[in-house]
Amino acid sequence: MEKHVRFGVAGRECTGVLDGGTVYETGGLFSTQRGTAYPVDGVKLLAPMRPSKIVCVGRNYRDHAKELGNEVPGEPLIFLKPPSAIVASGDAIVYPPITQSVHHEGELGVVIGQRARHVPAEEAWNCVFGFTCVNDVTARDLQKKDGQWTRGKGFDTFCPVGPWIVRRQDVVFQELRVRTLLDGQVRQDGSVRDMIFPVNVIIAFVTQFMTLEAGDLIATGTPSGVGAMLPGSTVAVEIPGIGVLTNPIVKG
Amino acid sequence: MEKHVRFGVAGRECTGVLDGGTVYETGGLFSTQRGTAYPVDGVKLLAPMRPSKIVCVGRNYRDHAKELGNEVPGEPLIFLKPPSAIVASGDAIVYPPITQSVHHEGELGVVIGQRARHVPAEEAWNCVFGFTCVNDVTARDLQKKDGQWTRGKGFDTFCPVGPWIVRRQDVVFQELRVRTLLDGQVRQDGSVRDMIFPVNVIIAFVTQFMTLEAGDLIATGTPSGVGAMLPGSTVAVEIPGIGVLTNPIVKG
Repeated sequence: MEKHVRFGVAGRECTGVLDGGTVYETGGLFSTQRGTAYPVDGVKLLAPMRPSKIVCVGRNYRDHAKELGNEVPGEPLIFLKPPSAIVASGDAIVYPPITQSVHHEGELGVVIGQRARHVPAEEAWNCVFGFTCVNDVTARDLQKKDGQWTRGKGFDTFCPVGPWIVRRQDVVFQELRVRTLLDGQVRQDGSVRDMIFPVNVIIAFVTQFMTLEAGDLIATGTPSGVGAMLPGSTVAVEIPGIGVLTNPIVKG
Repeated sequence: MEKHVRFGVAGRECTGVLDGGTVYETGGLFSTQRGTAYPVDGVKLLAPMRPSKIVCVGRNYRDHAKELGNEVPGEPLIFLKPPSAIVASGDAIVYPPITQSVHHEGELGVVIGQRARHVPAEEAWNCVFGFTCVNDVTARDLQKKDGQWTRGKGFDTFCPVGPWIVRRQDVVFQELRVRTLLDGQVRQDGSVRDMIFPVNVIIAFVTQFMTLEAGDLIATGTPSGVGAMLPGSTVAVEIPGIGVLTNPIVKG
């Protein structure tokens, strides 16, 4: 199984594939052609993509919609996180002083492999390059107060993603589970089979109005069990078969 | 007065300054050093920036908040438009088949000149490179239906911007008026003095949670007079002292 990464080495940002303890530089995020080899301990793994857009789906698991007292939506509920919110696995989530309620939302991330516009659901899987882990970190109090979710979900460091991308063909999609652990304790554990709108339906819906670009990220919604995190804790989004995205929370 | 532009010529995308009928290529959007000259009729003017984010302010003019029956907000109401929505002056706004109500919202666009994070209001003007015209095109029915504004304001072609950027020091800010004309008839006409949250306060608020990058665009809200546009019409956002952003509406 190849893991597609971005990494920093000697002041450069590179794309690569990670195989065991070695990162091989590649000519682009979707390439598998192996160039210069580096020991993974000698590089800094970055967030695995630099998306032009982070498209998120709200309330895409029935149990999660219910736990926050919301209706199950009749169409995908779409919102955006800003690219400035992205951090890599290992980086800190900074707890802002202006909120009293920062929640984890572990999610499956879908990475788009080619420009996609007006794609029917039957063809939408072809636009997917692969999968990664996302934490849709949310200041719950500001989300509610503002009505629009941009601030509550848009703080710098509120979009941990990674640690890498696993290609679509290397995953048995229907068996994926999304788990979130806070200080080692399981808080969320859901199957992607329980998504209200499956990945291909989300892509069809989104590309009906918004062109997706190669490298764009879709956060597909969170299962039930969201809850508060505090500085000093460590949160992990774990998708067996893909990887573990781990981030400490620090006081801002 | 120098007009900062992006333009396409011979298959390349360039930055430049427009002076009379001549575009001079420059080494970057903020540069004024003049290189190769092209007659403006021989190039295609593009949207003047490629922002990593389009940050918008809702309900920032009292009369507009009232005309839609909304409260005047106590803090800036922030949302995002996707970069995929950007088109240049002269390009078509495509009227989507899934809405029955597409509105114009003429706005002053603020172009950020340098990375900005946690900037106090007293220093925020220093982050502003210049100004442009923006049309925050909105599918009013979908905006209301979805609750989140991402779809209603995020369609491809729903963010006309341009035709160029005028530098901050070349403008008497307090005298700017934002006008929107539909088929030559004035529909919106407001003074930037009537913004509820002035530009520097918006920047201070936004950079408290979200890092702005050089080239990012802030759409500062629309004055009263928003209204429907139909295919076959032409809409213009005119800010005397800056320029006129003109777009035909076509059936999608």
